[in-house]
Amino acid sequence: MKNSPIKTLLASLIASTSLLNNVNAMEALPGTPPIPADNPMSAAKIELGKQLFFDPRLSIDGTISCNSCHNVMAGGTDNRDFSVGVAGQKGGRSAPTVWNSAFLSAQFWDGRAATLEDQAKGPILNPVEMGMPSEKFTVDRIKAIPGYVQSFKAVFGDKKDSVSYDNIAKAIATYERTLITSNSSFDAYIRGDKTAMTETAIKGMKKVEALGCTSCHSGANFAGPELPIGEGFYQKFPSFPGSKFDKKYDLMADEGRFEVTKDVSDKHMWRVPTWRNVALTAPYFHNGSVKTLDEAVRVMAKTQLDKKLSNKDVKEIVAFLNSLTGEFPAQTMPHLPDYANGTQVSP
Amino acid sequence: MKNSPIKTLLASLIASTSLLNNVNAMEALPGTPPIPADNPMSAAKIELGKQLFFDPRLSIDGTISCNSCHNVMAGGTDNRDFSVGVAGQKGGRSAPTVWNSAFLSAQFWDGRAATLEDQAKGPILNPVEMGMPSEKFTVDRIKAIPGYVQSFKAVFGDKKDSVSYDNIAKAIATYERTLITSNSSFDAYIRGDKTAMTETAIKGMKKVEALGCTSCHSGANFAGPELPIGEGFYQKFPSFPGSKFDKKYDLMADEGRFEVTKDVSDKHMWRVPTWRNVALTAPYFHNGSVKTLDEAVRVMAKTQLDKKLSNKDVKEIVAFLNSLTGEFPAQTMPHLPDYANGTQVSP
Repeated sequence: MKNSPIKTLLASLIASTSLLNNVNAMEALPGTPPIPADNPMSAAKIELGKQLFFDPRLSIDGTISCNSCHNVMAGGTDNRDFSVGVAGQKGGRSAPTVWNSAFLSAQFWDGRAATLEDQAKGPILNPVEMGMPSEKFTVDRIKAIPGYVQSFKAVFGDKKDSVSYDNIAKAIATYERTLITSNSSFDAYIRGDKTAMTETAIKGMKKVEALGCTSCHSGANFAGPELPIGEGFYQKFPSFPGSKFDKKYDLMADEGRFEVTKDVSDKHMWRVPTWRNVALTAPYFHNGSVKTLDEAVRVMAKTQLDKKLSNKDVKEIVAFLNSLTGEFPAQTMPHLPDYANGTQVSP
Repeated sequence: MKNSPIKTLLASLIASTSLLNNVNAMEALPGTPPIPADNPMSAAKIELGKQLFFDPRLSIDGTISCNSCHNVMAGGTDNRDFSVGVAGQKGGRSAPTVWNSAFLSAQFWDGRAATLEDQAKGPILNPVEMGMPSEKFTVDRIKAIPGYVQSFKAVFGDKKDSVSYDNIAKAIATYERTLITSNSSFDAYIRGDKTAMTETAIKGMKKVEALGCTSCHSGANFAGPELPIGEGFYQKFPSFPGSKFDKKYDLMADEGRFEVTKDVSDKHMWRVPTWRNVALTAPYFHNGSVKTLDEAVRVMAKTQLDKKLSNKDVKEIVAFLNSLTGEFPAQTMPHLPDYANGTQVSP
């Protein structure tokens, strides 16, 4: 997971190229995600993954599902600064949206998981999130639910180990790859419908290019250039430390990717988050310290570009960011397989 | 809310009549619920109610929705002894299922709410459940979400007060009235398909009648006779105190309906819960102290009828109770209206 100097250079070069070519280089969101060779998608696997995503029995006390913090009925987050896990415990970073996460080449704020599969394995075992004591405990709980055993066999083969922690993660990741919000007004605009965006939003779009925001917030997901899976696109935040915002929003306490790699060059490095549906994912930043989008825009301009924006600038940029709110696909509710012999969750 | 002696007598009389006539008097679950004259159903109201039912913004910190404790993707409960509300706080009674609650003539374990509308108003303001400080605070939060304002106006009329606490409850109750699980194997059997139930389940069905269980667990919902809305059907539990179960499962600590009415005749009186989907709603009883259905059957036989069942009896009765697991209607997921100007929830 360590970021080598060459990788960092490569990422910077790609970012610079993107900066040079960014006029008219904005892209619509693809309708289909990258799919790993070792985890092909199928309707049955998606349905199984959806059940698991919504199943609070993946938490020790039956209160927290993946959806608790990554609410797919909303913008894919919980709209809190820090998420609440089992027994009222709080995490240390704000939950990123699950929508369009299939297009990210690294997961978590610090990129510590290369894939959605790797990501899915984390919160289940995190003591302050879902609090399951071990992979085996998790697998045993799922194995005790006949409907799950049947589905895992149908999806992963009728083998003794078809219910495995790896396969739980594979199913969840497969469902997450369906969580794509196409057809935002921006997407319609970029595909040729020049009436799809308001004048204000178009001005905002030009402004984020002119200011340089899109040198990092590039690509179809506005989260950086397309990189191989596992190669996160990181930037320092704040890039211009010392503004009033550092203290006001406690931006320096968390050292970001450094906490994973212990490489000093990773201090305050963060994976560039998506702009897709950003209007719906307040509060903002790794610590969820900023409650509104307009303030987040002001903070970013100051801390990343050392620029102070006018209220008009902010209004236009926020209008553009709102044009990145996509269409949320209709979904059926899963029915969770029954455990017909009592309850499994702990008090 | 007080239970007058005449009302209690009436309920007992109805129960006795039901006891006399109970052979072959079992009923299939109706496909439609009773609908109050002052809250007619409509597709738009159901959809609005579904959004509210799933919206964690009805809790102070954005972590708890109605569905958190009454999970309609499962058996309509959280399968816990006591539910967990905001900040990890626990309630004092086990969450009853929301499925088929439309057929109950009183809500909550102690019947303290006459209608689903009244019930819906409780948990939102309960400090250990959803923790909202007041009706006004709740209404203000919903009013700040443009999509909700639009829907409330469409459903309740374009008036200044269309977003009101009463109307929030009306919408939620309307959605809950759609939560009916028809077509269990028992329903198919009782409608004439004699192959729908197993031999064991049929034996169990005859046994619960012969034992007298159905003198209380009568009616289409197996929760007592049909009574006017607001008239709960209560029974004492334990009816035969002094068994080993009192201590083992702490059955005497909670005084039930007495805690609402302060009428000594209501000590340890409880609303008779439904048997519909009972196989899915472990753990059992008001305090969720019994983890498995077979043990719950043993406890009931002893505490309510002073009878000790054989393992064969228990197995047959459990098979019958499993035949009361219905079909869960397919549902689309709601998309929660967006609050596009930051977050509303408290840390």
